[in-house]
Amino acid sequence: MGVRNILKSWDIKDYKVVDEQGLKEITLGASILATGGGGDPEIGFLWALNVLKEGKEIILIDPKDMPDDAMACMAACLGAPVVLTEKPPGGKEVLWCLESLKKYLGKEIQAIIPPEAGGVNTPVPMAVAGAVGIPVVDADGMGRAFPELQMTSFYTHGVMPSPTAAANEKGAVTIADTVSALMAERIIRNAAMAYGGISWIAGYPMTGSQLKRSAIFNSISKSWELGKAIYNCRKTHEDPIEKVVKIVGGYKVFKGKIVDIYREFGAEKTKGFSMGKLVLDGLEEYKGEKAIVDFQNEWLRLEVNGKVKCLPPDLIMILDSETGEPIRTDIVKYGYRGSIVVAPADEKMRTPMGIETFGPKYFGYKEDYIPVEELV
Amino acid sequence: MGVRNILKSWDIKDYKVVDEQGLKEITLGASILATGGGGDPEIGFLWALNVLKEGKEIILIDPKDMPDDAMACMAACLGAPVVLTEKPPGGKEVLWCLESLKKYLGKEIQAIIPPEAGGVNTPVPMAVAGAVGIPVVDADGMGRAFPELQMTSFYTHGVMPSPTAAANEKGAVTIADTVSALMAERIIRNAAMAYGGISWIAGYPMTGSQLKRSAIFNSISKSWELGKAIYNCRKTHEDPIEKVVKIVGGYKVFKGKIVDIYREFGAEKTKGFSMGKLVLDGLEEYKGEKAIVDFQNEWLRLEVNGKVKCLPPDLIMILDSETGEPIRTDIVKYGYRGSIVVAPADEKMRTPMGIETFGPKYFGYKEDYIPVEELV
Repeated sequence: MGVRNILKSWDIKDYKVVDEQGLKEITLGASILATGGGGDPEIGFLWALNVLKEGKEIILIDPKDMPDDAMACMAACLGAPVVLTEKPPGGKEVLWCLESLKKYLGKEIQAIIPPEAGGVNTPVPMAVAGAVGIPVVDADGMGRAFPELQMTSFYTHGVMPSPTAAANEKGAVTIADTVSALMAERIIRNAAMAYGGISWIAGYPMTGSQLKRSAIFNSISKSWELGKAIYNCRKTHEDPIEKVVKIVGGYKVFKGKIVDIYREFGAEKTKGFSMGKLVLDGLEEYKGEKAIVDFQNEWLRLEVNGKVKCLPPDLIMILDSETGEPIRTDIVKYGYRGSIVVAPADEKMRTPMGIETFGPKYFGYKEDYIPVEELV
Repeated sequence: MGVRNILKSWDIKDYKVVDEQGLKEITLGASILATGGGGDPEIGFLWALNVLKEGKEIILIDPKDMPDDAMACMAACLGAPVVLTEKPPGGKEVLWCLESLKKYLGKEIQAIIPPEAGGVNTPVPMAVAGAVGIPVVDADGMGRAFPELQMTSFYTHGVMPSPTAAANEKGAVTIADTVSALMAERIIRNAAMAYGGISWIAGYPMTGSQLKRSAIFNSISKSWELGKAIYNCRKTHEDPIEKVVKIVGGYKVFKGKIVDIYREFGAEKTKGFSMGKLVLDGLEEYKGEKAIVDFQNEWLRLEVNGKVKCLPPDLIMILDSETGEPIRTDIVKYGYRGSIVVAPADEKMRTPMGIETFGPKYFGYKEDYIPVEELV
């Protein structure tokens, strides 16, 4: 039907057309909100850019404009970010998933929503939507990145990740249609591991009314604002960290140098995740202080001088102090210097079911969740 | 359309109608050919009996009568037989799979073929066919039982196990549509483990011409003949072991008492299979001799007095010497007495690809395959 015809039939007059510069800005901003995860933004960006170069349009619509009975689904990459860099996609994987999902559902998918903010999982759903000629909903299911399929505001607001289809680069497709979100995660995770560590997925089919109830609104616009501000700082030589703090409504809590990295190995233990711990020694006004950051694909928990400063689902961002570029769990190295910014998660992520699904206890910590505003 | 209308439209005049007695005989015979695996025949039998009691017909057709372009698929249970007894099916699981498979394929399934000979996987596909009103093909994919999805003459003759759908009792469905048979096995096995050890599956969609090229012909009839002969022996007090030897074209190689059983535990190691080893001390003419039988859901390898007597894919059956009832890997206990009968696998199981797929080396033995006729 074509994206313009969908806009017309839904009577949407306010929308955003994403051009190459926009794509670059959104991808950078999303990779900051990805809190250390979300994978190599270069891969996501190039994929989406390719769609633009084929003459296709990537168009963002506001979630409130999505008709109640229209169907959307998320499209994404699931697996260990580090594998993604070694095993880049062929480009058709998510399209195969979307086809399989439509066939299985017996329904058309009329819009795509990213599951999370990430260097891969923000531009990839945009690329998919552009490729098939449907709009992207300016929203997501986390307002950050998280490692597991069920860790979304979709799920904690009653939308199930079933069915979800997962494909690999050779055309293998696995569909999980379960009554338990954790079982869907387990089956799709196992498929990703059978595929070699990475899978491309489409799932969480939802109606417009389900989407409006469960999604984090305007998170792509927030990524765009972030990316634009940082590119601008590079011209004006303003401090990018200050801009990020302002846009995300957060706090700068540390600046330091990475002096130690512990990584967990072995698929039996890590289940395909990038897991470990960073140690940073303070610099400048933080001299003599020490920060410890745990990670599982994303930065999870921050401790400064033995005191907890941020717990999931609140956001921890480690950014290069000069360029504002995010430092990611899959590429972090000894000697990197960065500023740590923390920020409150969206209120939709902080419901009792949210805290149960992606709060400290789910990740094996004994602490109760305390909002970052109270911790800093 | 109804099974009678299908027979009419395919112009099939020779077919077999299975009644309650027939079901009992087929189930017993199939559980003998299952070589120690195949699960509790009571569960399979009762399920199929229920379909007959609902007034539905179970009709066997000869594989050669299946039209070349008609579609068949297999339907079965996949997982550890011992879990099946603790977690019996609700009855709808395979029907959900079949529905999902049809939806995914966008094609009607017009006949069901059992994947193997087994106390569960022979009557269950018959029950499914009866329930949905289509015929059962008098054939299977092994002429025995084997533990993994790809271990069929279908696969070794070019039919892929993709797509295959796997369901649990709560309505969860996983579909694996891969380009590698081992990957399909891995994904479906993982789903079975996520479901708690057992899944119900429908898959290996194939045309009539693929079926004729790849299936083991008339194996349900062989089960029926076996079961009928054993029930008859119980009336006439003839030796059931002699009858089995004759019908399967095999050899009686041992009679003894089980004096030791080693079982492997832990899902990490066993991957949900019933694995281990039996030791038997000889009785009567075998007094002073010792037999060792390895198993992985099925009896795999037999050694008598330190000499190999049977290797996969040839058949090892351990039968109660008085009743002819098969002794299974999931229920075998210290003190059981049995006769061991070995028999050659169907020629379709002995191709080079067959030996690679389910010969001794696949199961981790160093020996080359030697046909049982040469070993005894």
